Amino acid sequence: MATVLESLAKLSITPKTVSHEAAVDNKAWTTALATADLGFDYKVTKSLILKPKTAKTATPTPVVVIALDSTETNVTALGKKLSLKECRFANEDLLKGTFGVAKDAVSPFALSNVSDLSLIHLVVDTALLELPGATLLSFREGAADKTVFVSVDELKAYLKSIEKEAIEIDFSTLAAAAAAPKPAAAPKPKAAKKEAAAPADDVHQMGIEYKKDGDFSKWYQQVLLKSEMLDYYDVSGCYILRPLSYYIWKQITDFFDNAITEMGVEDTYFPMFVSNRVLEREKDHIEGFAPEVAWVTKAGSSNLEEPIAIRPTSETVMYPYFSKWIRSHRDLPFRINQWCSVVRWEFKNPQPFLRTREFLWQEGHTAHLTKDGAGEEVLQILDLYEQVYNDYLALPVVKGVKSEKERFAGGLYTTTVEGFIPATGRAIQGGTSHCLGQNFSKMFNITVEDPNAPANASEEAKKIHVWQNSWGLSTRTIGVMVMVHGDDKGLVLPPRVALTQAVVIPCGLTVKSTKEDEDKVFDGCKEIAARLKKVGVKSKADLRDNYTPGFKFNHWELRGIPLRIELGPKDIQKSQVTCVRRDTGAKFALPLDNLEKGVQEALDTIQREMYERAKAKMEESIVRVDKWEDFVPTLNSKKLCLIPWCDRMECEDDIKDNSARTANEGEEEDERAPSMGAKSLCKPFVQPTEKPIVPGETKCVACGQDAKHYMLFGRSY
Amino acid sequence: MATVLESLAKLSITPKTVSHEAAVDNKAWTTALATADLGFDYKVTKSLILKPKTAKTATPTPVVVIALDSTETNVTALGKKLSLKECRFANEDLLKGTFGVAKDAVSPFALSNVSDLSLIHLVVDTALLELPGATLLSFREGAADKTVFVSVDELKAYLKSIEKEAIEIDFSTLAAAAAAPKPAAAPKPKAAKKEAAAPADDVHQMGIEYKKDGDFSKWYQQVLLKSEMLDYYDVSGCYILRPLSYYIWKQITDFFDNAITEMGVEDTYFPMFVSNRVLEREKDHIEGFAPEVAWVTKAGSSNLEEPIAIRPTSETVMYPYFSKWIRSHRDLPFRINQWCSVVRWEFKNPQPFLRTREFLWQEGHTAHLTKDGAGEEVLQILDLYEQVYNDYLALPVVKGVKSEKERFAGGLYTTTVEGFIPATGRAIQGGTSHCLGQNFSKMFNITVEDPNAPANASEEAKKIHVWQNSWGLSTRTIGVMVMVHGDDKGLVLPPRVALTQAVVIPCGLTVKSTKEDEDKVFDGCKEIAARLKKVGVKSKADLRDNYTPGFKFNHWELRGIPLRIELGPKDIQKSQVTCVRRDTGAKFALPLDNLEKGVQEALDTIQREMYERAKAKMEESIVRVDKWEDFVPTLNSKKLCLIPWCDRMECEDDIKDNSARTANEGEEEDERAPSMGAKSLCKPFVQPTEKPIVPGETKCVACGQDAKHYMLFGRSY
Repeated sequence: MATVLESLAKLSITPKTVSHEAAVDNKAWTTALATADLGFDYKVTKSLILKPKTAKTATPTPVVVIALDSTETNVTALGKKLSLKECRFANEDLLKGTFGVAKDAVSPFALSNVSDLSLIHLVVDTALLELPGATLLSFREGAADKTVFVSVDELKAYLKSIEKEAIEIDFSTLAAAAAAPKPAAAPKPKAAKKEAAAPADDVHQMGIEYKKDGDFSKWYQQVLLKSEMLDYYDVSGCYILRPLSYYIWKQITDFFDNAITEMGVEDTYFPMFVSNRVLEREKDHIEGFAPEVAWVTKAGSSNLEEPIAIRPTSETVMYPYFSKWIRSHRDLPFRINQWCSVVRWEFKNPQPFLRTREFLWQEGHTAHLTKDGAGEEVLQILDLYEQVYNDYLALPVVKGVKSEKERFAGGLYTTTVEGFIPATGRAIQGGTSHCLGQNFSKMFNITVEDPNAPANASEEAKKIHVWQNSWGLSTRTIGVMVMVHGDDKGLVLPPRVALTQAVVIPCGLTVKSTKEDEDKVFDGCKEIAARLKKVGVKSKADLRDNYTPGFKFNHWELRGIPLRIELGPKDIQKSQVTCVRRDTGAKFALPLDNLEKGVQEALDTIQREMYERAKAKMEESIVRVDKWEDFVPTLNSKKLCLIPWCDRMECEDDIKDNSARTANEGEEEDERAPSMGAKSLCKPFVQPTEKPIVPGETKCVACGQDAKHYMLFGRSY
Repeated sequence: MATVLESLAKLSITPKTVSHEAAVDNKAWTTALATADLGFDYKVTKSLILKPKTAKTATPTPVVVIALDSTETNVTALGKKLSLKECRFANEDLLKGTFGVAKDAVSPFALSNVSDLSLIHLVVDTALLELPGATLLSFREGAADKTVFVSVDELKAYLKSIEKEAIEIDFSTLAAAAAAPKPAAAPKPKAAKKEAAAPADDVHQMGIEYKKDGDFSKWYQQVLLKSEMLDYYDVSGCYILRPLSYYIWKQITDFFDNAITEMGVEDTYFPMFVSNRVLEREKDHIEGFAPEVAWVTKAGSSNLEEPIAIRPTSETVMYPYFSKWIRSHRDLPFRINQWCSVVRWEFKNPQPFLRTREFLWQEGHTAHLTKDGAGEEVLQILDLYEQVYNDYLALPVVKGVKSEKERFAGGLYTTTVEGFIPATGRAIQGGTSHCLGQNFSKMFNITVEDPNAPANASEEAKKIHVWQNSWGLSTRTIGVMVMVHGDDKGLVLPPRVALTQAVVIPCGLTVKSTKEDEDKVFDGCKEIAARLKKVGVKSKADLRDNYTPGFKFNHWELRGIPLRIELGPKDIQKSQVTCVRRDTGAKFALPLDNLEKGVQEALDTIQREMYERAKAKMEESIVRVDKWEDFVPTLNSKKLCLIPWCDRMECEDDIKDNSARTANEGEEEDERAPSMGAKSLCKPFVQPTEKPIVPGETKCVACGQDAKHYMLFGRSY
């Protein structure tokens, strides 16, 4: 086997050689070189060796890729381009056997060791080849802690010398081609057996190809898919909640269910089916849902006598039973809740978590003797929803009351927690707690005898129609969380809802590491994970030996794991671990004897700071607007407008019309710069104290009539 | 106001009078009289005063009922018979105002105090009137601690003297009429507003009208309805799980979910909808489900392009994704679980919990590298199912393997926990854990590379189809629990799944009690409930002042609350409470300073003894049968047959045919004495050690061929 220097010596090249900290992956390498303070300019390269899937009996035909480190090398797209099936990173055996190198010391010069170059595909990055010939490039010198610097021209000379034709690839156009829109509902019917196992494109492609402030919509979808939060499904508008996202829902469920149980709410389960006559009982109410109701008309091969609906919500399902079960004022407050899925067959574009045809939620339904009693509960529940957002999802919300136009059909008033997505400047209704008043109790005749009625009052006068509330929170919460916290590397999970809070990764091992070093590091990682588990930190050690630390870093960053804990030989020497925060990238050492406390504190800090950052961002995005001319520009700068408002529905309609950006005919809505008009979001409970509304004096910003209060407007989901 | 003795003195009757412990209700009264050791025979009576609903302005027209204590006085049926609306027990005001008596001292002789007897309906129990004239009857003497004894003839003389015509009612025929079958799906469409509030018959009718060993099926339905476990629903085969039953499911869920999480199973949620092509992928498997699949064909007013099914189970829904997600042997074992509802549109008679069109369950789906790995998990899960039954529902089960005929369609083998309902002598499949083998993994091409394959093996040879399991447990569990533990008074809940474990009831207060006494008792009850709550006992105090203790006893007995805690002035004097176990009726005093520990121990004892009794009953009901002549008689005596068996499907078919009782054409199946043939239940893991199978020697009891092992057979649900 020829060493790198030997191979170059044949061409009379004597390159600069530098020693530095052992670096197991390109990221660490870049850092190591930067720290070495070399005093000359150079470009870091990467050398990849891939193995495409080949027929059973064929010899492997590896692909060697030489590229700038800064180039996005989309392996799947490359495989497609070369018509090679399922390119994966080559395993240690192939590296050692065919190229004579260890995984952290791959360089193009290893090609000198290949006995049959005809089996190799050699790919070179156009961006690298187009650099000035004297530009120095860094290559591994055969070990994790040694680097040689070879100029572009010298590299070209080397490639020429081995007489292997290189395929020049412009990865930037390759990436663009791969990024072309894919059909939304992913897995196609897999008719043949063999075909069923064909992997989807996105499985092996690490990293997010879209920028959050580039194509937000595609970024969102890719984060969800690649982080394994969710998968697409062959019924449009339905998605699979994978463990990572279901776990978030479970945390929300546990918190909220305990809280309402404490309040005296009891869980029930009503059937998912509703007969037509029950569904249609309350006309105003059903009008809003009718176009989206899914109907079962067949069972087995028989047609049902009457179509049966799948519940879109349960007011009319439950309230006939309220009239049966509530017999006396002593039964009040009567409060039930159910955790279930509901179906709303929307025909608009589905969006994971935010607009799906089936979604999980809780719906609470309660009855009270008095309006005040009902009103008090409405706010208690809204506070719990706020806590879900603040304390679990690390998200700020604005609490307030919906306008006449936006309130729940058939209800008296609707309170809401409104969220905000800075990337699109759009608000999102995060959960609603409705006071239904007596509308449904009159419709369904839910009455009790007034305990305070005078004894001589007539039976009719003694009768009270109960005051009702309903309130719901759905898996939409999860979508908001992803949209706000995620970044270009993928998901960012608040520690309290993370299925894995800390991942421990063995680092700093090189080809020179002894078996003993390796065992120490791996055992150390195991022990750290176990110690953390013991104190309730959801942790795991990633001990896979077929991936580099760098691969693992990306893997877990993509999945949003809040804290990465690195352990290498140097850490062991110093009795410490190195921690890296997912949210900020901040790196810090933690003494091993303070491990548990330190990690718990770090997780608390991450949780708190994620919330604080999101809150600060929301606060700066709520702009007080005093004149109409500023209204649309404020929206266009991705902000929400807080304005003195007259509280009239006609004015709200006008605002919506007048704030819609003119979109070109047929132009698709741009998620990042939406053109739709602004809706009223809520009348915030906390009204500004500076320049408060002066009745009769302060005017509505939109129409000039007398303002009643401040109202929050914005483009919204 | 005339006293009882004064009223009787007018007729020259001087009855026997006895003092005893104050008794607030008839049950306590019966006990007090029995304890008094009177030395003569008598019959205890009951005197009820009811108030029917009357028009707003009308004067109340109370109903006075005089009956033997042993007579079941069905108040609702009585109201119907008399064409009176909604008879309820009269309140204190009416009792005092019109009859001049306290609630625990009502007697027929109070009629002397009524100013206008024309407003009264006087009802007398035929069973009482038909007693020999000299039979002594007990009546309250105007106080809770005094009783007079009046003969049947003397009572008749009194009634004659007041010149009020009595309506003679034969309550036994009345009860039978009321018990006539009702439509299964209860709430009728309530078209008009007013009608919607009309109460269902069963709301005010206390107590169960059917005996468990009488009409079992009606008993079961009534227990579920009246205990408020469940309510009927206007879509046939669907039921409402009310808080009492949903809570049981929650306990099961919590236990099981924690246990499988510990094992490494992760929760997910797949959509409830399945496309036809996915559903039909595995033919054998779907064949079993196809006739029961519900199809959505419409959304809003549009017809869907293709009908979409609602999942009956999720094998074919999930496994295409297994082939996508499982990439390497390092991903194994791959284990997911979901909590959801599934729909099987059965056309057979629905039965709450046991056979419903929608039901809640968990379904676990896992993949393993080896058959052994899969097999190990199958048994781990089965053990957890056993724990759910034993430790939570206080029910025994038999663990074993299903026969070829009874195993899961498409699977390799099925293990089961089999329950047993002594009242009907029928077994019930309680939960199943299937090893699916490689059938589905071959169908869906779920493969990994064999980590142990020799390096030079072909790609094909290296490929391993994963070994799969699936396992499910449903709300059926709850039905089994009700059927086994319930009694003629209603539900009996094992403490560990009881929404309320102990109810505290103020007792022993009479008209003579001072306000101070009353306050002491009520405050004491509150404090007891609070103290118990603090240590985690789910307790509540029933402080309703419009019901007698007796009414409350029945109310909570019906609902199966494991422990009743009574507190009266005498208990306070002795610094104790009086406890009554729901399961045995056993009564015991508990010093107040040992309250928490004592109650917790009592609950533990109840839980343990309920299990032990059910276990003993099951064990005595599994009969080893050595010759065919004993087989059907054993079934007919409500037992299960454990027989040496040849393990052949033809033999199983024969057994079923030959053990069916001949039912008359068109005769309805009698739930208590079913006529269907016996099915194989399982090959118990624990095979008899006495008279074990001797290969080649022991013969199959059914067919005489060589027996392979002992098999459990029985009629079953």
